[in-house]
Amino acid sequence: MKSRAAVAFKAGEPLQIVEIDVEDPKAGEVLVKILYTSVCHTDAYTLSGADPEGIFPAVLGHEGAGVVVAVGEGVTSVEPGDHVIPLYTPECGKCKFCLSGKTNLCGAIRETQGKGLMPDGTTRFSYNGEPIYHYMGTSTFSEYTVVSEISLVKVEDQEAPLDKVCLFGCGVTTGIGAVHNTAKVEEGAVTAVFGLGAIGLAVIQGLTQAKASRIIAIDMNEDKFELAKKMGATDFINPSKFDKPIQEVIVEMTDGGVDYSFECIGNVEVMRSALECCHKGWGQSIIIGVAAGGKEISTRPFQLVTGRVWKGSAFGGVKGRTELPGMIEDFMNGKIDLDSFITHHLDFKDINEAFDLLHKGESIRTVLTYEE
Amino acid sequence: MKSRAAVAFKAGEPLQIVEIDVEDPKAGEVLVKILYTSVCHTDAYTLSGADPEGIFPAVLGHEGAGVVVAVGEGVTSVEPGDHVIPLYTPECGKCKFCLSGKTNLCGAIRETQGKGLMPDGTTRFSYNGEPIYHYMGTSTFSEYTVVSEISLVKVEDQEAPLDKVCLFGCGVTTGIGAVHNTAKVEEGAVTAVFGLGAIGLAVIQGLTQAKASRIIAIDMNEDKFELAKKMGATDFINPSKFDKPIQEVIVEMTDGGVDYSFECIGNVEVMRSALECCHKGWGQSIIIGVAAGGKEISTRPFQLVTGRVWKGSAFGGVKGRTELPGMIEDFMNGKIDLDSFITHHLDFKDINEAFDLLHKGESIRTVLTYEE
Repeated sequence: MKSRAAVAFKAGEPLQIVEIDVEDPKAGEVLVKILYTSVCHTDAYTLSGADPEGIFPAVLGHEGAGVVVAVGEGVTSVEPGDHVIPLYTPECGKCKFCLSGKTNLCGAIRETQGKGLMPDGTTRFSYNGEPIYHYMGTSTFSEYTVVSEISLVKVEDQEAPLDKVCLFGCGVTTGIGAVHNTAKVEEGAVTAVFGLGAIGLAVIQGLTQAKASRIIAIDMNEDKFELAKKMGATDFINPSKFDKPIQEVIVEMTDGGVDYSFECIGNVEVMRSALECCHKGWGQSIIIGVAAGGKEISTRPFQLVTGRVWKGSAFGGVKGRTELPGMIEDFMNGKIDLDSFITHHLDFKDINEAFDLLHKGESIRTVLTYEE
Repeated sequence: MKSRAAVAFKAGEPLQIVEIDVEDPKAGEVLVKILYTSVCHTDAYTLSGADPEGIFPAVLGHEGAGVVVAVGEGVTSVEPGDHVIPLYTPECGKCKFCLSGKTNLCGAIRETQGKGLMPDGTTRFSYNGEPIYHYMGTSTFSEYTVVSEISLVKVEDQEAPLDKVCLFGCGVTTGIGAVHNTAKVEEGAVTAVFGLGAIGLAVIQGLTQAKASRIIAIDMNEDKFELAKKMGATDFINPSKFDKPIQEVIVEMTDGGVDYSFECIGNVEVMRSALECCHKGWGQSIIIGVAAGGKEISTRPFQLVTGRVWKGSAFGGVKGRTELPGMIEDFMNGKIDLDSFITHHLDFKDINEAFDLLHKGESIRTVLTYEE
């Protein structure tokens, strides 16, 4: 079938909206009509060419929601008409990782997904007969996309607005999950959040849920402070206003450091600050941001020997098919605020404008609509 | 009073055995007659001059055992005649750290201890009228030493041989504690231990207690493998025999990496290997070794984002006054083997020979006897 798609033909160039060919889903695969998608920094990172694992031409996009159109052989968990959210972290429930009880990083289709291919090693997308690669197992920048069954979570509540819950596909889940699953923040904790994009703001929501006593929000763009405050941040720091390392500022203002810090940018220098602002003896720092290829984090080992813990989180440690239904319910019950993340709405055809808004720091999330 | 002591007058020079003056204990302090002491790599590191916080002249030594001779005002937990082990990690039971329930790093006397002083900011040692500094709050290289009450654990069992339990003052406790307190290793875990000195061997004992299914022992000195095997190691690797990074070797031989790794050397490159040999999704690496001043650890943040955890451990996370009595009991009941660590016995006067044996890798621990 034919599908409108925003194709990344080449690194560093704008996406091109073209009509591509989408093949039928094979065994274990599902054809989904994407209704809404948003744009995340990871899409921008890959499009920029800085991602050493970026493959072109490709259909990017990993934060979306839609409706099942057709299912391949053997698919039993979803059927045509089901509302679904594609998951870039699948959950097969059967692999060493899924069975470990210790991680959400399912290994079932990791190898092919990383190469922009479906599990059988081929692609379902093509343009003028030439293959177009998939991205993160989701490719939500095509109106019709093919994903693995294990990369889909069903949205049971038909009332759940897909133009909002699509945000659970990445940033919001990542931030809230990192607080509860990775850091396991307890009531009264003193915390710091570096970077107030969608993930940082979601971390703040998670910290508010966890009843952290102090949530220090850090960003060089002070325009972000208002939304951070709305979500529960208690202190606001612009590091560019200090002439000493920000970790020292935070250690001083917290009598020794924070119990938990979160890096939500992807900057290795900030990752160091986030670790070093932690309290001796027990402070934990969680890396969420994705650093550019080749960049490394560093610190003196003394920081760890004296009790700090350095961790990371991917998709917030959330097992999508198991845990997202509960998060959608939390949203429907008013326990998660998605509306505040959505600063812009655009038509799908204006997707490059959504990237511009993200780069300029003017948007948190732009939700793109496929409907004509 | 007068005391025989091995004084480190200058960095990089052998210790000199001289007669120093030792003042009476002040309030909260205790005068201890050290009967046995051993030599640890940390003493050698400070003596070498590489330790940026090393202060000279000083009485080094932090792994010893002895008898209380006199107590200062207000001391209630020990009395003359008590058998004791000095603790370089004190336990006041009252500070923010002790009360946190999250760390053993008592903060009560940290500041003065780091400066080679007693809590009142002065020293109890002098030679020809010139002050000699303390070291790690213990200074076991003097026959008579003054330590804080909170830096002593009483050995309740009079039968406990002080020439053996003195090892609980550092290496053995650190290694076993890191397994149980810091890593919390569970039955069946796949593990790797880098460096087979006293700490690495103690880690192996801890892993054997924890019923790890696999204990991979790594050292360039293959002479260490026999003792490692005796303590429970199941696999033995000499990294110099491979022409690829040792983390790759370990990931291959363990189908993805180990559940827990321990760095027991103090080499920042090995710390990286120890992290990167951990299994994606859940592997934890514990830094125990003390790196030289200014050295930094590095890795790609991707290692953490994909689920590995980087931690450290000081004195094995053990609260000395609370937990050492149980470990001494374990030794008395045959659950901890101390004898195998003691490869050499020497008179105190031959202390520089003990350093030589350590440097040559010929000894695990040399126990020095003060008795004439």
